[in-house]
Amino acid sequence: MNRQQRRLSEGALYNDMYQFTMAQLYFRAGLHELPSHFDHFFRKYPNYGEHQAGYCINAGIGWLMDWMKDFRFEDEDIACLRSELGPDGKQVFGEDFLAWLQREGNFESLTVQSMGEGRVVHPNTPITSVVGPLAMAQILETPLLNALNFQTLIATKAARVRHSVKSSLLMEFGMRRAHGLGANQGCRAALIGGCDFTSNVGLSYAMGLSPKGTHSHAMVQTYLALGKSEEEAFQAYADMYPTNCLLLVDTIDTLGSGIPNAIKVFERLRQRGYKPVGIRMDSGDLAYLAIQAARMLDEAGFPDTCITLSNDLDELTIWQIHAQIMEEAARSGVNPENLIRRLTYGVGTRLITSSGQSSLGGVYKLVAVKPQQEWVPAIKLSNSIAKVPNPGHKLAWRIYDKRERATADLIGLADEKLDEPCLILHHPTEKGLCRRIPQSNISRIEPLLKTVWDQGTIKYSPSLEEIRAQRVSDLEALDTGVLRLRNPHIYHVSLTTKLLKLKQELIAKFTGERQEQ
Amino acid sequence: MNRQQRRLSEGALYNDMYQFTMAQLYFRAGLHELPSHFDHFFRKYPNYGEHQAGYCINAGIGWLMDWMKDFRFEDEDIACLRSELGPDGKQVFGEDFLAWLQREGNFESLTVQSMGEGRVVHPNTPITSVVGPLAMAQILETPLLNALNFQTLIATKAARVRHSVKSSLLMEFGMRRAHGLGANQGCRAALIGGCDFTSNVGLSYAMGLSPKGTHSHAMVQTYLALGKSEEEAFQAYADMYPTNCLLLVDTIDTLGSGIPNAIKVFERLRQRGYKPVGIRMDSGDLAYLAIQAARMLDEAGFPDTCITLSNDLDELTIWQIHAQIMEEAARSGVNPENLIRRLTYGVGTRLITSSGQSSLGGVYKLVAVKPQQEWVPAIKLSNSIAKVPNPGHKLAWRIYDKRERATADLIGLADEKLDEPCLILHHPTEKGLCRRIPQSNISRIEPLLKTVWDQGTIKYSPSLEEIRAQRVSDLEALDTGVLRLRNPHIYHVSLTTKLLKLKQELIAKFTGERQEQ
Repeated sequence: MNRQQRRLSEGALYNDMYQFTMAQLYFRAGLHELPSHFDHFFRKYPNYGEHQAGYCINAGIGWLMDWMKDFRFEDEDIACLRSELGPDGKQVFGEDFLAWLQREGNFESLTVQSMGEGRVVHPNTPITSVVGPLAMAQILETPLLNALNFQTLIATKAARVRHSVKSSLLMEFGMRRAHGLGANQGCRAALIGGCDFTSNVGLSYAMGLSPKGTHSHAMVQTYLALGKSEEEAFQAYADMYPTNCLLLVDTIDTLGSGIPNAIKVFERLRQRGYKPVGIRMDSGDLAYLAIQAARMLDEAGFPDTCITLSNDLDELTIWQIHAQIMEEAARSGVNPENLIRRLTYGVGTRLITSSGQSSLGGVYKLVAVKPQQEWVPAIKLSNSIAKVPNPGHKLAWRIYDKRERATADLIGLADEKLDEPCLILHHPTEKGLCRRIPQSNISRIEPLLKTVWDQGTIKYSPSLEEIRAQRVSDLEALDTGVLRLRNPHIYHVSLTTKLLKLKQELIAKFTGERQEQ
Repeated sequence: MNRQQRRLSEGALYNDMYQFTMAQLYFRAGLHELPSHFDHFFRKYPNYGEHQAGYCINAGIGWLMDWMKDFRFEDEDIACLRSELGPDGKQVFGEDFLAWLQREGNFESLTVQSMGEGRVVHPNTPITSVVGPLAMAQILETPLLNALNFQTLIATKAARVRHSVKSSLLMEFGMRRAHGLGANQGCRAALIGGCDFTSNVGLSYAMGLSPKGTHSHAMVQTYLALGKSEEEAFQAYADMYPTNCLLLVDTIDTLGSGIPNAIKVFERLRQRGYKPVGIRMDSGDLAYLAIQAARMLDEAGFPDTCITLSNDLDELTIWQIHAQIMEEAARSGVNPENLIRRLTYGVGTRLITSSGQSSLGGVYKLVAVKPQQEWVPAIKLSNSIAKVPNPGHKLAWRIYDKRERATADLIGLADEKLDEPCLILHHPTEKGLCRRIPQSNISRIEPLLKTVWDQGTIKYSPSLEEIRAQRVSDLEALDTGVLRLRNPHIYHVSLTTKLLKLKQELIAKFTGERQEQ
């Protein structure tokens, strides 16, 4: 793929084919400007097999809107569509449609609402809603899902790893195993979800951060192959980066050579007035090695140097390393709490690919159209009631109890007020199951969807710090049971009485029609 | 990420930070031009949990070389590195190094050998080798692994799905769940590995193919919300695309409404002289529904229309659908073989994210340096002998037996001839275990690595069709046990006597040095 091929594949044709064939159909049927409402939501939290998420962290809308801003059909995009021939040898896309696409094929006619990045999000609550003319709202589907599904997946994983490392330094190191150019969107999401830094250089600078890293085994290997020693390799690194000396100690033998050599180099740095940063270990039994490393560094008078762990880490592995340290460190004369505090983490493959659950099944569903003055709900049936999208022109709210804890998300129709003395929250699928919350037990009802894109103008551009602060405050508002890494407590996502009724009526209507046939 | 931020994140700084800090160290130590040899290989086949691969399909080198061709440090890249300050407030990267990087920071000094795309590849056999000055060979590590790990992962998954669908039409539909912009590299790899087409429009045109697709539920929903019927929606689609009419029949009720309505529309198409293409089903018990759909279409006189299945398919699900059809179809009066032949497949999420094993652990290891006339092997030890990379300036061969079946890959040193009357193939880790193959039992010894990049010039640019033909012939040369979707037979990857000895000597040398300390 040369540069021109890449441009072609990342521009206006970055999409599924059926969006264009459907758009042409809408165009010919005179439906392309029909006001429509699509909801974006996911149905299930990520399940990593041995552990499951109890919340997700929303990410990607900022990235998507920058892409939408640049969106236009260039001549070569139109030429490609024009070249598409049917089995009869005729153009699949007519010139009238292509002319319209080149003239009006942009997202300036749409309004996008979103919960915003860094927010805690739950299944079925609309995270993004797109309102506007049918054809362009339809064309947005694939690029929207491509950007939001993946970034939310990775921000969620990063938040879980952050939970496991508590307040320690957490670095994203996974570029080499990431899914190609998705590395950049993944690293961005990791920074939103909980990583302090990433090793990804260009992405870091694009986000206004410093990229982080140490050195690799190859550097030590080069010195060894040239007949020099590991100690000489370390010394060369320390001489080059005396203020930022973090040494990778496992090229030969972590305890037998790496750490002793690092200590010798650290001693010389100290004599020159520098403070060594620490060591990194990338293989072996990391809990055991961390304890022994701490003991050796303590004995050598370096109790403050960090010990960086890397190598296939994820939230459960880190949790287990901590447990093992709590149990075993004292036996080696090491204070476990102090050791855990000095640990820092480089997390790679398992974070950037969301190992165990490599996709988030977010969908983008037509929920209403407005042929005249009123929104008319749209529905899609399914064999499973849980998979029937909530129909209608809707909104969503988060209900906070007196402790300022988020107690439920509530989905309702856009004209609802939620001012009755006692809110009724219906279970979305279990008939008759509902929860009643008197207003006196509610501290706050927060509308969740804000306009982020208004007719081509970006209305939402928070800084990375603001997004991270949003994440922290949203997580603090969750019950701790929901934060649990395994078997989390289930957060309630409920429907208003009015929405539930509408849904049941629509299901009955189409099921009824079907039976008459 | 606006356009400028994206350029920054996808250009010369698309890399891990430590590649640049190490490169500067090499530069200052006068080692940046030291001739070096890095091998790229993976250690384990993908394991999807309930099933495992017995081979991989190599992909990505063509994409990578196009990226390498465009690689240069622009002023703004250098400005970013210049802005990087240490804790002491001084520039991390010196002006001498930055000037060198801008002047000579490209890949024109490197020679790259590769097995080529579409080839069957196995653990530990070098797939790519990079020879050239240390600093730039080091800087290539992360972009190389990022491009090759992912594309090989997806080409492998696609080959497995291809195996399960036999010669049926297989379409890639996963863009919406792919890892962001990695969608394009993933779709490319899917086309190499076994998919006939993809729904990804831009990527298809960039690769010289037609993108494929049908319509979504939203189109039918729109008609329903406007008070029209599913049949009217189908009819509008058929009128628009009479030569390419494939209808999605599960928006309301597949058997109760979707297929009967499709049949009515197909009958009208037939009256107008068109041949309907078929139906698509995206939910429910696909095996059961396919049987019933076949029965209904047969009865209506459409025995040749295709039945396209989609919805979370992968190789095992498809295998199971076939098994269920073989068992149950006759009971509904449907010939199971005929039904399986008319099935076509849209495979999405599980292919494009390689569900169950979302990464391939390919590595890039320094194996030799050449300070004077001779290559000096480099080694990295490890707690596990299986993880010690094979050292030295090497080559690799594939041994074919008299049946023209690939019987083993053999890794040896670059100056070896393999002309002894009886080849000895050593197990890479089990001491003493070896296999002897007399030359009389060998039909062919194939050198596996070909020069694909020579000092900045691309020497390898096969067409997609050539790559696919390579895949087909490599797969045909495998024993069928190796192709098995579950518990595949293990293919042999062996070492020559000379390489094994070198490896053992190096391990002894560094283990010895360690013990002396």
